[in-house]
Amino acid sequence: MGILVVGSVAFDSIKTPFGEREEILGGSASYFSIAASYFADVSMVAVVGEDFPEEHISFFRRKGIDTSGLQRRQGKTFRWKGEYGYDLNTRTTLDTQLNVFADFSPTLLPAHRSQEYVFLGNIDPELQLSVLEQVKRPRMIACDTMNYWITSKKEALRKTLARTDLLIINDSEARQLAEEPNLILAARHILKLGPKTLVIKRGEYGALLFVGNSVFSVPAFPVQDVLDPTGAGDTFAGGVMGYLAASGAQDESALRKAVAYGTVMASLNVMNFGPLQLADLTFPEIESRYREFRKITVFDDPVPLRGQQP
Amino acid sequence: MGILVVGSVAFDSIKTPFGEREEILGGSASYFSIAASYFADVSMVAVVGEDFPEEHISFFRRKGIDTSGLQRRQGKTFRWKGEYGYDLNTRTTLDTQLNVFADFSPTLLPAHRSQEYVFLGNIDPELQLSVLEQVKRPRMIACDTMNYWITSKKEALRKTLARTDLLIINDSEARQLAEEPNLILAARHILKLGPKTLVIKRGEYGALLFVGNSVFSVPAFPVQDVLDPTGAGDTFAGGVMGYLAASGAQDESALRKAVAYGTVMASLNVMNFGPLQLADLTFPEIESRYREFRKITVFDDPVPLRGQQP
Repeated sequence: MGILVVGSVAFDSIKTPFGEREEILGGSASYFSIAASYFADVSMVAVVGEDFPEEHISFFRRKGIDTSGLQRRQGKTFRWKGEYGYDLNTRTTLDTQLNVFADFSPTLLPAHRSQEYVFLGNIDPELQLSVLEQVKRPRMIACDTMNYWITSKKEALRKTLARTDLLIINDSEARQLAEEPNLILAARHILKLGPKTLVIKRGEYGALLFVGNSVFSVPAFPVQDVLDPTGAGDTFAGGVMGYLAASGAQDESALRKAVAYGTVMASLNVMNFGPLQLADLTFPEIESRYREFRKITVFDDPVPLRGQQP
Repeated sequence: MGILVVGSVAFDSIKTPFGEREEILGGSASYFSIAASYFADVSMVAVVGEDFPEEHISFFRRKGIDTSGLQRRQGKTFRWKGEYGYDLNTRTTLDTQLNVFADFSPTLLPAHRSQEYVFLGNIDPELQLSVLEQVKRPRMIACDTMNYWITSKKEALRKTLARTDLLIINDSEARQLAEEPNLILAARHILKLGPKTLVIKRGEYGALLFVGNSVFSVPAFPVQDVLDPTGAGDTFAGGVMGYLAASGAQDESALRKAVAYGTVMASLNVMNFGPLQLADLTFPEIESRYREFRKITVFDDPVPLRGQQP
C-alpha cells in the first residue's frame, strides 16, 4: 500500500567530529522517503527551488519514489547548516534559510488524495491540517512535530493531533507537549490528545512505543562508527511507516516490528553523511540487520532457581 | 552458591524533587547485599562506626545476609549527602565524610575466603587487590570502580582488572577507562585489560553486556514513579551476581538473564528512598517483573513482505 509523505527537501551543510559536507541532500521528506522506499510505494510532496539539481530527483526516482508532488518554485531551496559536538549528542544550528519552503503550501494532486498511509513531516501544523483536509479516508495518519510548533502553534497542533493515529516524536518533544518530565506519564497524557499510538524516539538510547496501556521499549542498534546522525529520526519514521504499509497490519505485534525496522533503518543511516548509506541498500541487508537486532536484544524466560527466598 | 561482597555501608542524606531523607541506610555493600539476598547466600564485608544502629544489622540478618564480616570500629559511620536535579539525571554531592571508612582494611574471616562469587564494590583498587589476595579460587570475581580511581589509582586498578572476570561500570566510567568516547570501541578496549565480560550501566537508558564479540542491549524497565535513583547501580550488580550465583551458570544466555534480573532489581529499588522498596519483596514479585520486562522488550521475527525492493 502506498505512502504519502509531506515534508521538507533541503540542502544540508553538516559538520561532525568525523568530517564535513557542504549542501548535500537533506530534509525530512528526503530521509523518510528513501527509508520507506525499501518497503512500499512512496509519493513525496515537497518544494524545491530552481537550484535543486536534476540528479537528486533522478536519485529519488531510482529509489522508486513518485516525485510528481515535488514542486519546483522560483527561488532557492531550503538550506540548513549545523554542527555536532564531540559525542554527537549535542547539535548547534548555525544557519537556517527557509527560502522557497517559507511559502510551502501543499496542494495534493488527485492521485495523492487517496493514499492509504500519510506521514506529515515536521512542518507547520496548519499545513499539516491543510493536507488532512485534502486526503480521503487514509488507513493511517502519522505525524511528527517539534518544540517550535509545540510552543508557537499550540491550537493548530492540537487539531492535527486529534486526527492523528500515530505520533512519532522525540523525548524532549514528548515532555514539552505533555508538560510532564516523566516519559511514561507524558505518554499517557499525549494518548489523550488523539493519537492511538505514540512512538518516542530517544536517539542513541532507542525508542518507546505506547499503545493503550501497553509499553514496548527497544534500545538503539549499537553502531560502532557513527559518522552523522542527521536525518536519523526521519529515517526511523520511514522504516516504521514503510513496514506498516508493506504489512498492512496495525496490531501491536506489527507496531513493535515497525519500531524495530525503524531502529534498523536509522542505524544504517548514521553510518555515513546524509542519506548516502541508505542509497544502495538491499532488502536482504535490512532483514539481516533486523535479525541481528533481535539477537542482540533477546533474553530467555526465567528458570526455576534453587535457594532463593520465597 | 555464596557471594562475598566487599564495599561500603553508609548513612545517606538524599534530596530528590520528590522528597528528602536524612541519614538513611546506604552504601554499595548494603544495596548490593539486599538485592542479591533474594537469589543467594550473601556475606558482607564492610565497616561501620559506633553510631550504626543495631536495627540495620538486624535488618541485614532478616534478609539472610551474613554480617560476621561487618566490622564495627571506633568513630562514626561513612556519611554521604547528595541532591538530584529535576529529571533525576544529574546528582550533586553536597558532603562526604569517610569517617571509619577512611581506614577500611578488609581482613577476611577464614569462612569468607572460600566464597565462590566475589563482588568488589567501588572501593580503592588497592583494597580490592588485598581482598583478591585473601580469597581462594573463586568461580567468579566481579568488580565495580569509579572515575576517581580510574584517574588516581590507575596502576592498582589495572592489576585488579587483570584478575577480574566481570566488570560492572557505568557509561562515563567505561569511556574514561578506555579513553574512547564510542562505547562499543571502549568495550573492546576494556575486554583486553582482563575482564572476560563487561556490563555497562546506562542508568535510565538500560545496560549493555559485552562477552567476546557479542553484544546484548536492554533498555531500562520503564518506571512511572521514580522517587530516588540512589543505589540503583549497586542494586543492579546485586541482581546480576545474585542470579549468576543462584544458577551456577556463566554462559552468555545466563549472563543475559543476569543483566535482565539486575535491571529488574534496579527498577524496583528506584521506586522508593534508600533500600526500602527492596526490603519486603518476594521472589515471585521479582519473577513477575522479569516476565513483564520480557513482554515489554520482545518483538517478532521478520515475516516475508510483498512489494519491497529486492
